[in-house]
Amino acid sequence: MTPAAPAYRRLSVEERRSQLLDAALTLFAHRVPEEVSLDDVAEAAGVSRPLVYRYFPGGKQQLYEAALRSAAEELEQCFDEPREGPLLSRLARALDRYLTFVDEHDAGFSALLQGGSVVETSRTTATVDGVRRAAAVHILSHLGVTEPGPRLRMTVRMWITAVEAASLIWLDEDKQPPADELRDWLVDQFVAVLSVTARRDAQTAALVETLVVDG
Amino acid sequence: MTPAAPAYRRLSVEERRSQLLDAALTLFAHRVPEEVSLDDVAEAAGVSRPLVYRYFPGGKQQLYEAALRSAAEELEQCFDEPREGPLLSRLARALDRYLTFVDEHDAGFSALLQGGSVVETSRTTATVDGVRRAAAVHILSHLGVTEPGPRLRMTVRMWITAVEAASLIWLDEDKQPPADELRDWLVDQFVAVLSVTARRDAQTAALVETLVVDG
Repeated sequence: MTPAAPAYRRLSVEERRSQLLDAALTLFAHRVPEEVSLDDVAEAAGVSRPLVYRYFPGGKQQLYEAALRSAAEELEQCFDEPREGPLLSRLARALDRYLTFVDEHDAGFSALLQGGSVVETSRTTATVDGVRRAAAVHILSHLGVTEPGPRLRMTVRMWITAVEAASLIWLDEDKQPPADELRDWLVDQFVAVLSVTARRDAQTAALVETLVVDG
Repeated sequence: MTPAAPAYRRLSVEERRSQLLDAALTLFAHRVPEEVSLDDVAEAAGVSRPLVYRYFPGGKQQLYEAALRSAAEELEQCFDEPREGPLLSRLARALDRYLTFVDEHDAGFSALLQGGSVVETSRTTATVDGVRRAAAVHILSHLGVTEPGPRLRMTVRMWITAVEAASLIWLDEDKQPPADELRDWLVDQFVAVLSVTARRDAQTAALVETLVVDG
């Protein structure tokens, strides 16, 4: 017996929506938004174009934004690490997940962060900012900081931006150096920039002490 | 004798163009592009709206792009530092000029780099990327590097992005800490991230030696 073709399976509204979204996400992950059409999404999901419109009446823009939100949720998960083991190992594991995500969504990731895309809107920018904020919140919470001072907060935000820049350059340079080298490099940079801030900020200095002791 | 009012002075085509551009640049520097109208530009320059259109038939978009190019040229100059004195003092002077520019063009600088602006186009993005590239070229040339390897290049580009992030956060936080503290902090971060890269890259290791000796 051959399994029924996906187009003929009866899906619930939620299942269908999520199937279309998955198809869109896969397409947007590896092509720039300009090169993805609604027909491509319909074909990838094995359904008709009108069906796609029934679920996403806003067409490609709405699909892109929905795919983006779903990708953003996945990205936010990357930095949601169990509170176990040394802090820097947790950061390394979070970066592993993050770099795997970047690897698997290369074109989509570049298009989104480099901007200038035809479907970029203030909503897409807000979504990206949301991920950055979530990453900062996760990191500070792992560091055990509930009230970060401006210097510590700025350092963490700068490092997050540097990680983003590194990911874009990494994609641009055919994913070199290997992801695990890049990960260790980024962890070392985190410690280095915190140490620089520690020289001018007591809160950060106390943190760096912990990191060194804790590993 | 009182000087003639600007509106009545006969200006050459080039003078008039540059006068309109200056007026636009001042307006775009302190307001988001959405809040600047052609009437504002005409009023600031003391001319009529049709005159603005005669020089910039593309209207606000064209004026914005021209103002942006002119701002980008100024920004690129920041990193064009004489080859005199210790390398880190040169970097500090370049950052002083850069932070002065950020200070003087606060709203325009944020609007441009944060994207999502109504008048953002692939051309504006390309202009910003041009400034980033120019900054990297200046820095590497001061470091005496003609053929930067991928790790050194990535480090310099990441630091430039971190500087950009710092500037945006700085504007967001009412220009705190003071510019000279921020400048020293960024110089120290430059040395710190290069030192991290030096552990895994011989070219960068040789450079860091020079920086430490040279100051």
